[in-house]
Amino acid sequence: MADKPEKTKARLPRGFADRSAEDIRAVEKMMATIRSVYELYGFEPVDQPMIEYTDALGKFLPDQDRPNEGVFSFQDDDDQWLSLRYDLTAPTARFVAENYDKLPKPYRSYRSGWVFRNEKPGPGRFRQFMQFDADTIGTPNGVAGVAADAEMTMMMADVMEALGIKRGDYIIRVNNRKVLDGVLEAIGLGGDHNAGRRLTVLRAIDKLDKIGPEGIAQLLGAGRKDESGDFTKGAGLERKAIETVLYFMNYEPGAAAGEWRKLEAATDISPNAAQIRWLKTLDYFADTGREGVDELAAIAAMVDAAGYSGRVLIDTSVVRGLEYYTGPVFEAELLAEIPNEDGQIVRFGSVGGGGRYDGLVSRFRGEPVPATGFSIGVSRLMTALKNLGKLDTSDVVAPIVVLVMDKDIESLGRYQKMVADLRAAGIRSEMYLGGAGMKAQLKYADRRGSPVAVIQGGDERSKGEVQVKDLIEGARLSAEITDNVEWRAARPAQVTVAEGDLVAEVTKILAAQAEERARGK
Amino acid sequence: MADKPEKTKARLPRGFADRSAEDIRAVEKMMATIRSVYELYGFEPVDQPMIEYTDALGKFLPDQDRPNEGVFSFQDDDDQWLSLRYDLTAPTARFVAENYDKLPKPYRSYRSGWVFRNEKPGPGRFRQFMQFDADTIGTPNGVAGVAADAEMTMMMADVMEALGIKRGDYIIRVNNRKVLDGVLEAIGLGGDHNAGRRLTVLRAIDKLDKIGPEGIAQLLGAGRKDESGDFTKGAGLERKAIETVLYFMNYEPGAAAGEWRKLEAATDISPNAAQIRWLKTLDYFADTGREGVDELAAIAAMVDAAGYSGRVLIDTSVVRGLEYYTGPVFEAELLAEIPNEDGQIVRFGSVGGGGRYDGLVSRFRGEPVPATGFSIGVSRLMTALKNLGKLDTSDVVAPIVVLVMDKDIESLGRYQKMVADLRAAGIRSEMYLGGAGMKAQLKYADRRGSPVAVIQGGDERSKGEVQVKDLIEGARLSAEITDNVEWRAARPAQVTVAEGDLVAEVTKILAAQAEERARGK
Repeated sequence: MADKPEKTKARLPRGFADRSAEDIRAVEKMMATIRSVYELYGFEPVDQPMIEYTDALGKFLPDQDRPNEGVFSFQDDDDQWLSLRYDLTAPTARFVAENYDKLPKPYRSYRSGWVFRNEKPGPGRFRQFMQFDADTIGTPNGVAGVAADAEMTMMMADVMEALGIKRGDYIIRVNNRKVLDGVLEAIGLGGDHNAGRRLTVLRAIDKLDKIGPEGIAQLLGAGRKDESGDFTKGAGLERKAIETVLYFMNYEPGAAAGEWRKLEAATDISPNAAQIRWLKTLDYFADTGREGVDELAAIAAMVDAAGYSGRVLIDTSVVRGLEYYTGPVFEAELLAEIPNEDGQIVRFGSVGGGGRYDGLVSRFRGEPVPATGFSIGVSRLMTALKNLGKLDTSDVVAPIVVLVMDKDIESLGRYQKMVADLRAAGIRSEMYLGGAGMKAQLKYADRRGSPVAVIQGGDERSKGEVQVKDLIEGARLSAEITDNVEWRAARPAQVTVAEGDLVAEVTKILAAQAEERARGK
Repeated sequence: MADKPEKTKARLPRGFADRSAEDIRAVEKMMATIRSVYELYGFEPVDQPMIEYTDALGKFLPDQDRPNEGVFSFQDDDDQWLSLRYDLTAPTARFVAENYDKLPKPYRSYRSGWVFRNEKPGPGRFRQFMQFDADTIGTPNGVAGVAADAEMTMMMADVMEALGIKRGDYIIRVNNRKVLDGVLEAIGLGGDHNAGRRLTVLRAIDKLDKIGPEGIAQLLGAGRKDESGDFTKGAGLERKAIETVLYFMNYEPGAAAGEWRKLEAATDISPNAAQIRWLKTLDYFADTGREGVDELAAIAAMVDAAGYSGRVLIDTSVVRGLEYYTGPVFEAELLAEIPNEDGQIVRFGSVGGGGRYDGLVSRFRGEPVPATGFSIGVSRLMTALKNLGKLDTSDVVAPIVVLVMDKDIESLGRYQKMVADLRAAGIRSEMYLGGAGMKAQLKYADRRGSPVAVIQGGDERSKGEVQVKDLIEGARLSAEITDNVEWRAARPAQVTVAEGDLVAEVTKILAAQAEERARGK
């Protein structure tokens, strides 16, 4: 006799998750809003597949020092390497390079979809997650081109407000990699041979909100031991250089912090204008740094002119982790204080970011193709909005349940006809499809959150009638047995009507329930 | 000196495709309609990740005889095998098995998303494609349980009509694997040792619409050589057995074809009732076959009772390729004749299908968990609907373009303010972000299909004015230079207004254009 086959274990690989009805509906709602803003700015949808040639995606992930680290890769039957996309920007660059002559220039596009990282998962850190990006490709270089970056930051501000996040509860921070490079040059980290140390410094600065200025100082110096005891080797900078970096980030301990804020207060100019004025007082910038400051000045002027002052803010501490950025970088941050997974009230932080990536399309074309884009972390933003009560999906009404009292084929046909009639009237409804008795069926309707149950046994059938139960009123009546002081509408929890009046009666009950919900009962 | 780095070639792997704005919008529109029908039937959204453990997905693809054939697989860092999902049913089974006690039973759910097949791509045959599924899991076995299958078929009929496909232009065909097994048993292919030959026969029948009854007869016999000269070995059946199968499929050459149609015509019963009566005249069925006929009889009765007679049709030639089906199987077919890729007018054929898969959840739980589902091929259905003119997205208005005449920061700020004002009024608009002159900018607006261009040079600026160009009227005026007999509205193609009236003027022009579109001009 053969062995009984072993049961397969139903489980997901680490870092992957199923999504609930509530989450799916919340994301749909949120994405529709984001899409409407992108459309308003003239962006067009476009979409790339999830699998690309590994070399076409390139390797730009942070902390990705070994080949194939960070991405899921596999060989095709012709031995070429394929990878699952790790973001939406790299495939966009491939697409634009491949179709460059056919596209309008500049080319504004948006796309949403799943991306994959072959990384160690953790709480809130998944190996499959969703992004929603907008990109503008083919703008001119330099000051005129940064109008596209300015537009990105303002569009993100509009997205936040369209989602119901109040002004003052979010901020779009803007910096420029060229300015950061200028600072690094000034402290002696210029040149190709210092590329590794520059990366170490940028990654350190990028951790500001997690480890604070002291942590950064350690990472810029000898190194830092984190809570788990793991030691990260530092960039080995001198004390003077470390101070320069911290001062530049407006985090030097003591009085100099927020130098530009003093300028702002003293002169009654906008925060952005004050930042630019302060940046121009720094005397160590050579060409690249000065170019970066000029670009930031242009962004600041355009943002202020269009009325986004105070919402889009020049901030010298912004870095962004990805290695392909070449100019302006931005970050959308929620300032609202929201309970985290452990119930602590914390500032929510980043929900998206982006920047200029002039090298990505050029990689394929061998000619300069300036480009800038923004990526929203969909799951993270959804979590924030749910916490803020901005993604209420309680207006989704659960289906009416038509109970199955007799299981002969003729009766099943009759119940089927009832749900068909209800649906034809646009009423969400289902025939009970299980094998259980009446009590279990009502329990099922309760579990589904059904507003109404419809019952027809042999007695009702012989009289051509049907019972209609208002389950919401019924639940309240049960609750009121212990508290009958409370006022309540004189609405019966159950009525018997002629078969032909089923749809009208259900419609009436649903309308009464909707009215009660609207009254906030 | 270092070599110049080699350019990366921008290209996609075979069988993968980018999606255009038009396709994305058409799919969005179509999916929203499908979703609304699924919701109306009480189904809830749920969603699984794209990567699962290989063993959890199982191997049920047609023509998949070697391990890992058909799926993209790779090893995790703990050496366990992962795969990209090849359909939405296998992950659903895993999800339900894993969360069985938490879910209401029966559990009605729907989901859409990309699936991946590591197969040889061809015209219209991709390695990444989208499905939109609905499933009901945890119904009772047997005749009572097939109410869930009946519901699936009616829901699919409702989906077709909600998408604008007229009654008579589609059909939902229903068969039962148990009936097919009964026929195979009758011709001596029962028992485990004949599993391989049974599969060969089923695969042959499944190709009816491609190779016709003669092709099937060859595949059931010695074998068949296709147009390319490739030979497929047949099932080796005797002539008598082949005739039994063809007769059962209502395709026996000669007078017996459509036996049930004669019954229908003679007795004035519904097509489904006639089919069942005919099936009951076949005297060779043993237990499994008779059980299958009883289930089909129940489905026929429910479908007819709910008013779906003629739209949902019992059809003994339906097989479905996937190996996990255990009972009723269904197929949604478009009867409309549509131009194919080569411009030939052909019946469009299948746009989706499904069936009962009682073994899939049980695989994990070691107890019977009956389940049934339906899967729509999204891209295929979209192609059909586009051909039928049911997915018109021409109501999407392209953005207004604000031209950039002066490139100093102050001017850029002013243009930025104009688009910000237009957007605040809900008008889709963009500031030109390229480096080109006025003529090229107007060409860009033309390429984008913009309805209006806004121009402010130094002259207008000094007078506090702005030029507003109606590009649609403008294009018509140009066309009329050669044909000035045609009536046209007395609408100027270009006006100059005060800066403060920009939004009002653009609103007025867009309204006039919308009215003209509505008049079908």
